[in-house]
Amino acid sequence: MTSSSVQQRPLADRSPDELAAFLEAERAAHERLVAAGLRLDLTRGKPSSEQLDLSNGLLAGLAGPDDVRDRDGVDVRNYGGLEGIAELRELFADLLGVTPAQVAAGGNSSLVMMREVLVDLWLHGGVDSERPWGREERVRFLCPVPGYDRHFTLLDWFDIEMVPVPMTADGPDAAEVARLAGSDPTIKGMWVVPTYANPDGSVVSHEIAEALASMETAAPDFTILWDNAYALHHLTDDEHASADVLGLCAAAGHPNRAIMFASTSKITFAGAGVAFLAGSADTVAWYTRHLGKGAIGPDKLNQLRHVRFFGSADGVRAHMRRHREIIAPKFDAVRRVLDAELGGLGIASWTEPAGGYFISLDVMAGTAARVIALAKEAGVALTPAGSSFPHGDDPDDRNIRLAPTFPSLDDVEAATRVVATCTRLAAAEQLVGG
Amino acid sequence: MTSSSVQQRPLADRSPDELAAFLEAERAAHERLVAAGLRLDLTRGKPSSEQLDLSNGLLAGLAGPDDVRDRDGVDVRNYGGLEGIAELRELFADLLGVTPAQVAAGGNSSLVMMREVLVDLWLHGGVDSERPWGREERVRFLCPVPGYDRHFTLLDWFDIEMVPVPMTADGPDAAEVARLAGSDPTIKGMWVVPTYANPDGSVVSHEIAEALASMETAAPDFTILWDNAYALHHLTDDEHASADVLGLCAAAGHPNRAIMFASTSKITFAGAGVAFLAGSADTVAWYTRHLGKGAIGPDKLNQLRHVRFFGSADGVRAHMRRHREIIAPKFDAVRRVLDAELGGLGIASWTEPAGGYFISLDVMAGTAARVIALAKEAGVALTPAGSSFPHGDDPDDRNIRLAPTFPSLDDVEAATRVVATCTRLAAAEQLVGG
Repeated sequence: MTSSSVQQRPLADRSPDELAAFLEAERAAHERLVAAGLRLDLTRGKPSSEQLDLSNGLLAGLAGPDDVRDRDGVDVRNYGGLEGIAELRELFADLLGVTPAQVAAGGNSSLVMMREVLVDLWLHGGVDSERPWGREERVRFLCPVPGYDRHFTLLDWFDIEMVPVPMTADGPDAAEVARLAGSDPTIKGMWVVPTYANPDGSVVSHEIAEALASMETAAPDFTILWDNAYALHHLTDDEHASADVLGLCAAAGHPNRAIMFASTSKITFAGAGVAFLAGSADTVAWYTRHLGKGAIGPDKLNQLRHVRFFGSADGVRAHMRRHREIIAPKFDAVRRVLDAELGGLGIASWTEPAGGYFISLDVMAGTAARVIALAKEAGVALTPAGSSFPHGDDPDDRNIRLAPTFPSLDDVEAATRVVATCTRLAAAEQLVGG
Repeated sequence: MTSSSVQQRPLADRSPDELAAFLEAERAAHERLVAAGLRLDLTRGKPSSEQLDLSNGLLAGLAGPDDVRDRDGVDVRNYGGLEGIAELRELFADLLGVTPAQVAAGGNSSLVMMREVLVDLWLHGGVDSERPWGREERVRFLCPVPGYDRHFTLLDWFDIEMVPVPMTADGPDAAEVARLAGSDPTIKGMWVVPTYANPDGSVVSHEIAEALASMETAAPDFTILWDNAYALHHLTDDEHASADVLGLCAAAGHPNRAIMFASTSKITFAGAGVAFLAGSADTVAWYTRHLGKGAIGPDKLNQLRHVRFFGSADGVRAHMRRHREIIAPKFDAVRRVLDAELGGLGIASWTEPAGGYFISLDVMAGTAARVIALAKEAGVALTPAGSSFPHGDDPDDRNIRLAPTFPSLDDVEAATRVVATCTRLAAAEQLVGG
């Protein structure tokens, strides 16, 4: 997943004089960037306006006055239907590789569904729990790193202790996960972003998924929160299928271990899409039972709009190819600039994701925060150092998450040039200073 | 709030022979109803299709492709804006009698916002809490009865102990509330449905609101969950204004005591409206801070649709008069039938609400469950006995909640006739049998 073409000589091979000259040149380059007064932003993992426009058909009065009933005859404008309308569950069951009975369709946010699940676990425990998690002495969670900052924020909100585990090119380090989960009953679960992970773009292989599904865990209710946020968000012709984690869990005798989440936030409208939860039939029943204690039903009208807009699962797949047409060139631009400007220097590596929303850039250890500060001086906002780690703590201070979807192609390219200059400058500072 | 015109002689004044004849006649009447094979339903406190049609303008492509930005220039299709869009907060601040800074606009359910607030209190405590409610030895809540079943279900989900307090014609019995809350620090709060309460239709007077706002409480974080679900849902020209509970709380030195909830569920679409939370600026900040730990923002597109549809607070008020035109005749029909069929018998009393969604019928003590069973035999679904009490326990077995908005006018009238017959029969059974 890492690349560096060889245009330049590694900094490590250069003499002190050469390094000093390099440092001087980079300082001058940085000063020119600062003087240019840029104002760019690579922090936002959200769709661009052009992408949102792809779904403007949703605004056109779909599910209009003469079309307010779902196929069961229910008026979608009114209360009810905790699990969402059948035709949308069916459509996304197809896309997620599960049966409709294994899917609930909710409101506009899968993150909110994750919060709901954690609240349910905390107050009442899950299908296989011996007691509510809130009554355990201690609850810990495995967090593959780098990972999604909002996952960590959510756990921290519960005072759930986070235990980092390494990511590999094929997903979380399953041996390390099995070692920890197998021996420690306070470890109650883990996060997985299986497809085009945030931020490193990796895809969980069938083998890793099978290992996670079948491993013995000390906690009987070990729960994999399987956040399949980018399941359909391909950037290349090599469209990776997500591992069938629910099937693998069932086959391994742990049918309730994994709970899957997905949404149309990065398919239709980030703020006005539909979110999904999938799991065993028991898990879906457990979820809707608790949901019913404090909710009457999701926005079924918006769900019906989505059904009318897409028509079918293939309609969604075709729609995702139009997203790709818009954003793949932005990812290409980042790679092209990083290749040209950092390739061969031996001070950075970066991912070349086949999907998703992020590129993960590893700069020289100990310089990520400095790179981000330098970029800020030059008018480029980058995600704070350590964001992809629990409590914002990147032990090596090397990871930077780049989000190229929102800015224009020109801005992505300009911002990446700044990132490259700052990466070179920070490395040179450290090599010369150290 | 109770009525009984005097058409018939009280059953209590009748001789045993007269009562026996009355019982026989009612039995025969009930048998005829059973034979008629009706299928009616007075359980559903939800708008009728005709009411929903009033808001079909929301379906017409409002907030269309050329109108996707709020007045701050934010693309409502994208992520963000935890507190909701400014223009909708402003519009409902006007309607709720608070300032825009005191309002957050959310998703499609105020019940979900109540759940969120209770989760926040449970995990972290409120603005004035000494510790999270979940770390208290015991948490109790005052529940004015009769009240809203979903409020009680929600508390029960947290294992919060419910302490019933009586309702009066002007809201909860404030003296009893003050006595309990003033002496017992485990009593952490109370429910209030201030305007056209579910189910008794009462309106909290300024005096009661002031008493609740100013009373001394043993718990420093005593919280009034002020569910103003029917604030604008008038049935007569006497449009009751809701008491200014937030102003009264602030004036009394307890600015964070009350948290208000409202929604457009019974204004626009029950399943696809917008919900609101209002409180002190500190409370709104507290709520959005916790919300931000597991949510990115509400459906702002639907919020903008609502702004476009209403235009102004007066647009909402005018819209509510159209609802009244549809549902007031249904409430009138219930009253007319009950007056004619139960008036003077001395076995039942019922409310004559000036707004809201319910009529509360008190039948002879000990017969509510029997009335409901008899009605079921005759094909009329009524809300289960005790629904308006914590744990479904009506100690007098006398309260029945009637919801006349959803069925057609003819069905409301027919169903109420069945209710009246069953009320007479159950009373006669008890008087003759006892």
